[in-house]
Amino acid sequence: MTVHPVLIGGEWRESAGAEQAFHAINPSTGEALPECYPLSPLAEIELCLEHAAAAASIVRTWPGERFARFLDAFAAKIEHHAEALVAMAHQETGLPVSPRLKDAELPRTVNQLRQAATAARDGSWSQPTIDTAVNIRSQLEPIGPVAVFGPNNFPFAFNSAAGGDFAAAIAAGNPVIAKAHTSHPGTTRLFSELAHAAAQETQMPPGYFQVIYRCNHADGVMLAKHPLLGAIGYTGSRTAGTQLKTAADAVGKPIYLELSSINPVFVLPGAVAQHATAFAEQFAGSCLMGTGQFCTNPGLVITVASPETETMLGDIAQRFAAAPVGVLLSESVLRNLKLAVGTLVNHGAALLAGGQPVDGAGYRFQNTLLKVTAQEFIRHHQLLQTEAFGNASLVVVANSADELLEVTQYLEGNLTGTVYSAADGSDDELYQQLEDRLRPKVGRLINDKMPTGVAVVPAMNHGGPFPATGHPVFTAVGIPAALRRFSRLACYDAVRPSRLPAALQDKNPTRTLWRMIDGQFTQADVVAK
Amino acid sequence: MTVHPVLIGGEWRESAGAEQAFHAINPSTGEALPECYPLSPLAEIELCLEHAAAAASIVRTWPGERFARFLDAFAAKIEHHAEALVAMAHQETGLPVSPRLKDAELPRTVNQLRQAATAARDGSWSQPTIDTAVNIRSQLEPIGPVAVFGPNNFPFAFNSAAGGDFAAAIAAGNPVIAKAHTSHPGTTRLFSELAHAAAQETQMPPGYFQVIYRCNHADGVMLAKHPLLGAIGYTGSRTAGTQLKTAADAVGKPIYLELSSINPVFVLPGAVAQHATAFAEQFAGSCLMGTGQFCTNPGLVITVASPETETMLGDIAQRFAAAPVGVLLSESVLRNLKLAVGTLVNHGAALLAGGQPVDGAGYRFQNTLLKVTAQEFIRHHQLLQTEAFGNASLVVVANSADELLEVTQYLEGNLTGTVYSAADGSDDELYQQLEDRLRPKVGRLINDKMPTGVAVVPAMNHGGPFPATGHPVFTAVGIPAALRRFSRLACYDAVRPSRLPAALQDKNPTRTLWRMIDGQFTQADVVAK
Repeated sequence: MTVHPVLIGGEWRESAGAEQAFHAINPSTGEALPECYPLSPLAEIELCLEHAAAAASIVRTWPGERFARFLDAFAAKIEHHAEALVAMAHQETGLPVSPRLKDAELPRTVNQLRQAATAARDGSWSQPTIDTAVNIRSQLEPIGPVAVFGPNNFPFAFNSAAGGDFAAAIAAGNPVIAKAHTSHPGTTRLFSELAHAAAQETQMPPGYFQVIYRCNHADGVMLAKHPLLGAIGYTGSRTAGTQLKTAADAVGKPIYLELSSINPVFVLPGAVAQHATAFAEQFAGSCLMGTGQFCTNPGLVITVASPETETMLGDIAQRFAAAPVGVLLSESVLRNLKLAVGTLVNHGAALLAGGQPVDGAGYRFQNTLLKVTAQEFIRHHQLLQTEAFGNASLVVVANSADELLEVTQYLEGNLTGTVYSAADGSDDELYQQLEDRLRPKVGRLINDKMPTGVAVVPAMNHGGPFPATGHPVFTAVGIPAALRRFSRLACYDAVRPSRLPAALQDKNPTRTLWRMIDGQFTQADVVAK
Repeated sequence: MTVHPVLIGGEWRESAGAEQAFHAINPSTGEALPECYPLSPLAEIELCLEHAAAAASIVRTWPGERFARFLDAFAAKIEHHAEALVAMAHQETGLPVSPRLKDAELPRTVNQLRQAATAARDGSWSQPTIDTAVNIRSQLEPIGPVAVFGPNNFPFAFNSAAGGDFAAAIAAGNPVIAKAHTSHPGTTRLFSELAHAAAQETQMPPGYFQVIYRCNHADGVMLAKHPLLGAIGYTGSRTAGTQLKTAADAVGKPIYLELSSINPVFVLPGAVAQHATAFAEQFAGSCLMGTGQFCTNPGLVITVASPETETMLGDIAQRFAAAPVGVLLSESVLRNLKLAVGTLVNHGAALLAGGQPVDGAGYRFQNTLLKVTAQEFIRHHQLLQTEAFGNASLVVVANSADELLEVTQYLEGNLTGTVYSAADGSDDELYQQLEDRLRPKVGRLINDKMPTGVAVVPAMNHGGPFPATGHPVFTAVGIPAALRRFSRLACYDAVRPSRLPAALQDKNPTRTLWRMIDGQFTQADVVAK
């Protein structure tokens, strides 16, 4: 049995943790895949950190163009090897080849890398600011080695070796240590081989990109608080993320988390009356797409009791029952989904559809719809907000608009909040009251469409109050904003002109760089006074 | 004995904690001042939070103009009552009336409030971003009630009821709960009376500005993690700040801290050879100004051994011995300074000047200069970075330039790092090597002048890596950047036009607001395509 090597200090080398190697599992069959990957011990993680710190020191003052070249070269290689990547990811995750992996997620991943390259080249993300009267100048600069922990549910777009956090950290000028998600090590290996080749072609220093496949929790905590680490990007479970957060916070290390979100969807009475069928169709599609394994999956619906509401719920339940059951990403996703549905049922939720694992090979759970009264929800508001990650959703039925508003008060922080309302304005007064309560609790407020689908555009916010993320001012998606997470503010006070970084010198280095000079945004040079 | 009331929910009311009242102490005499202030119990803090949350909900969508009017009205009142404020602050802190309080700190405070008003009016701080093709729009919005814990050393410019965090939190549209520093409750009371009057005049809701004077540590922790609180601004000791940080971090509550900083100053060999006398004069002035009680006080000097260095240190020691000894802010500052100097001496530092408390009334400590070898510093690098807050500074003498660089590797995060180098370029190679190591560790890098003096300009960074602050991307001084700390990113996805905030509607509401539309900064309207 061959155990794949890890990439440390610019070389593929045998891991000291090869004896504790693991296989990925094909979730469609439940069978182990042949490839084998090591569990890296602490010494190996520390070696990564030393190489990454050396690389950070080398590239600290490089122009954005250098990182852009690497990102572009990597993106081209991914396109060239798309077939192998899609085949591997399909095998490791059970996600459909088309349209999901091949036509949606892979192009999105390549697009993110290229957007990040453009942002690195342009440099405006770093917010150069110059005050001429006092000769004080500042910009955001790279924070140093970034450890990226990717999630299970996006083998491409959030992969620790190619996804959003990777692209943002690299574009901001930082080395990356990728920790593969253990449910898709092969996909991560293929990305890493391409990233390494791209790094060599574009003359990045050894240690600029490194990969390990697994580490134990205690060593992950050591990594999170290590003095040589600059910051952490983590997407995954609330339990593991909270452990890393506690460790990083204790030493003031920036950690950017995406933890859990149930993405409440409100259907106001006018929308139920006017758009029940359209809603049922959109909701079922959104909730079951990718077997419901999206960070922005609509896990909670809140509406007001009426005969039309009952009809609508019946319609949704039928759609859930009739839809094919998708594959879940792993045995642990299945186990946690079963536990979460149990928690909901044990605290007053009634099953309208599904509720049980599906017999047979592979990891599948019936498409599951649950219902609970608003009173019951308020009584057990913490447990009834348990994230049922996968193809399950809970509907809260309030007796009145006031009760619907009261439910809102008990919501935790979420990535998204969605409101469907009547087209004729009949819900508008309630919308305003609801918005007052909902807006502060969600990162992205949506009207009349489902929260799944996260456009990679500058105005996107894929963030939100805890526990959706660790800090509500940052976003994981959306360039250039996502880059700022992996930076620190660096000010130059009376520093001699020849010693200033290019972006802070009098002359605008590219003529396209946006800078704030004496309080005004401009692309001009500093004008001598 | 009359105990002053607290300001809660728009009314001055008797505190339930009047029985545990305290006096401020005049540090010049060590005697208690006549006025008496309560210790607020938890129920009172929770009442503040309820009123503040109600106020936050009311003002959430108000235009910046409303907050600007309040800030401007408050600034005018401060100017009108400058004499009383200066007299009170002098009595409570021992800081000199002129130029410090009257001619420097008070004008700076008023200037900060007016800069914050201008930023609120303009609105560009909130970074409105619009992507027309997908109709996604986002901006920074107020985060909700902000608790401000001010420090002892700036009774005006960082006062919890008038200083930098107050101004930034208000300008970003948030209610403030001010927790007075217990060493200057009277100054805080005067500010609070003026702020309250300004709030009434400008029709701010009750609970928009509130003040308490003291609470115990456990209740401070409850406040920091309370669900109704939006964020915390804290400037003060590392011990108390770390307790609040742990509580806030555990529930993902943004907390912005300014903790401790010893502000290393490097004097390179050419600078010693060419500018020793000028350096000695500037250094002694900076270190002893305000009895050394500045966040950016130069507490650590690092230089290379030579006969000229010995002469320069002798010169500095003479200046320290000859300079008048200032008053320290409180008995606890004196006690901590004595302890810190003891820690330095016990770990190899030799006294070149001072080292003892000054007998007599009031709180005074001799101007103190210490020296240690680089080897000794490296051996006890943690304890020898103990902040000796006050008129004391430690000089590290390296045997070589290489040893100076090695010392740099052991430095903790600091607000500032300063390098004095030769004018003729003879230190330039060493400067580059030093900058590589120093730049990532300090918020503000300074050339050839002392770190004291923090200009309130957009490019300022009064921040830095932990333990100087809690997060290296934020600054406590510098508008508009300081406002962003007290905000969250709010995205609107397909939200109907009539429901959008003014700054995100197609029409630029002021024509001066800077927005990023489809990736470009502009002050224009959204153009229909």
